[in-house]
Amino acid sequence: MQKLAVYLPPMNTEEKRTDVNTLGEFGLIEHLTRPFSLHQASSIKGIGDDAAVLDHGDLCTLVSTDLLVEGIHFDLAYTPLKHLGYKAVVVNVSDIYAMNGQPKQITVSLALSNRYSVEALEELYAGIRLACEKYEVDLVGGDTTSSPKGLTISITAIGQAEKERIVYRSGARPGDLICITGDLGAAYLGLQLLEREKRIWQEHPGIQPNLEDQKYAIGRQLKPEARKDMIEVFRKINLVPTSMIDISDGLSSDLLHICKQSKVGALLEEDGVPIHPDAQMLALQFKLDPITCALSGGEDYELLFTIDPSDVEKIKYLPEIYIAGEIVEEAHGTRLQTKGGNLHPLKAQGWHHF
Amino acid sequence: MQKLAVYLPPMNTEEKRTDVNTLGEFGLIEHLTRPFSLHQASSIKGIGDDAAVLDHGDLCTLVSTDLLVEGIHFDLAYTPLKHLGYKAVVVNVSDIYAMNGQPKQITVSLALSNRYSVEALEELYAGIRLACEKYEVDLVGGDTTSSPKGLTISITAIGQAEKERIVYRSGARPGDLICITGDLGAAYLGLQLLEREKRIWQEHPGIQPNLEDQKYAIGRQLKPEARKDMIEVFRKINLVPTSMIDISDGLSSDLLHICKQSKVGALLEEDGVPIHPDAQMLALQFKLDPITCALSGGEDYELLFTIDPSDVEKIKYLPEIYIAGEIVEEAHGTRLQTKGGNLHPLKAQGWHHF
Repeated sequence: MQKLAVYLPPMNTEEKRTDVNTLGEFGLIEHLTRPFSLHQASSIKGIGDDAAVLDHGDLCTLVSTDLLVEGIHFDLAYTPLKHLGYKAVVVNVSDIYAMNGQPKQITVSLALSNRYSVEALEELYAGIRLACEKYEVDLVGGDTTSSPKGLTISITAIGQAEKERIVYRSGARPGDLICITGDLGAAYLGLQLLEREKRIWQEHPGIQPNLEDQKYAIGRQLKPEARKDMIEVFRKINLVPTSMIDISDGLSSDLLHICKQSKVGALLEEDGVPIHPDAQMLALQFKLDPITCALSGGEDYELLFTIDPSDVEKIKYLPEIYIAGEIVEEAHGTRLQTKGGNLHPLKAQGWHHF
Repeated sequence: MQKLAVYLPPMNTEEKRTDVNTLGEFGLIEHLTRPFSLHQASSIKGIGDDAAVLDHGDLCTLVSTDLLVEGIHFDLAYTPLKHLGYKAVVVNVSDIYAMNGQPKQITVSLALSNRYSVEALEELYAGIRLACEKYEVDLVGGDTTSSPKGLTISITAIGQAEKERIVYRSGARPGDLICITGDLGAAYLGLQLLEREKRIWQEHPGIQPNLEDQKYAIGRQLKPEARKDMIEVFRKINLVPTSMIDISDGLSSDLLHICKQSKVGALLEEDGVPIHPDAQMLALQFKLDPITCALSGGEDYELLFTIDPSDVEKIKYLPEIYIAGEIVEEAHGTRLQTKGGNLHPLKAQGWHHF
């Protein structure tokens, strides 16, 4: 930085050019942030979990942030702005719950083109407000600016947790049981449905889609909920999972995160993966394998966590918690045991946005 | 949210359409966030200052967030990515200093198109890292995603401050002295210079600009610094300003923020507004009034603060702190007294991005 060079235009003079796709999302972040180290005494955990953990006395502060970009993460052709505002908050507080914490505040920043009217933004904020009320978080800041094109929403969630109750991705041990809340795959199938209806509508603009009997899958896509209730249940039954993550990228990818950070393997059982009957039906309609939708679909915002086997009695009879496999030694890899008894290595799907 | 309506396409069916420009940046934020109230015990201060203030025991947590959008806030034709990364951090930590706090952590989120190579991002992160080292903050999180077009950078800064040392915009009282650090207007003139050279270059692509003798103004635009040093000075001389803001929108606009929040007026003296000789010269070259550049230019990231008159001895002989006027009763308005002795009402410039 000593020499202040002004060069025009920098984009043309680049010598080497490696496409970001060669690294993938997680590889890219890892590559770019590797040279950074933590120096502040209060930085307990930096990059690499659902949220950063900051030491602020008795309670730790949790910080998580997400960007939602029009044309990448949402399509306003079928996403009502109120739902979008709601979902944008949900995906962020979900990260705080995934640390076994309580979200307390959010900041919301928007970059938007002049295509957006005040009324459109009122709708977006009405959704944000609904989510703030539901999840008991305060909107405490943000930034609003213009954009040459489209809408970008950046939300940061700030939460709290007692230090000894924070659950990281890195705590899973061989023998732990793999648990999943709710059901998986429906959000992805809801998206397929909305995309199909959009194509039909584009070809035949007069026809309004009738999606009344697909409310479940569409609701999972357009208005997901974070598992605040489960974090409350954990406290009530005095359970601290050994590791946890929220399922945003898909079960495969998120289980691989836990395995990588915990330096363990996993044996996932197809039989144990919860899939809603509506999602089963819809998958068949789209000629997709329901388990593939559950493994790679993403956006379910359910919790994936592991527990010590001695805690199994605490959760055994609880609704909406399913045991779906076991953590194993790292050398055994991360595999799916199908209903037919075959073993398949799990693959990270996820991010192919570029 | 009870009824899940899927409508295609929502943008065509809008009934009323109010352009966001009718409200302006601050009016828009106020309009959209008015229905929100603070419920969490830890939310001491929400929207309306440089940073939110959260009660976390002995120390308060400060949170500030900024979005930088390509084509709005920066032009890569003349902004080296390393400088951009540096500046993106600086503008955020500056907000924490403006609360008399110490930044400790940042999160960095990026939305970027596939035009950006890994090497380009390495440059950006090299600048971010330099700023992290300079301002002693840890990078603890973020999100990286693709974008259909351009680059958007969202940074959230997290800081700490003792509750009784936090300085809000709202504490100025009639009789307080208005103080300014450093000098104003040069960042804006640096931008004018870069824009002019870009136009010349576009018309005559062979010509590389020679900006060697304009290093000061260009440096102020491309590589601003936040006033960490001043916050340290305040502590050393045991000064707690009565109000403070960082000068990002321009002296006029930022002084008006203090006046509005403190419910006071101000008498600013042209003679007291610090302007660098290089900025003076450059203003004349562009046929601009130097004081106008200082009042409305913005992006100086200097501190504007008010002190109790009994504290004047503490700062009187300190370099880079200038007394530029006095806080008056609200009824007297917010005015500039020119060198010629005339009085002009101050106007908020700022945001005309849309």
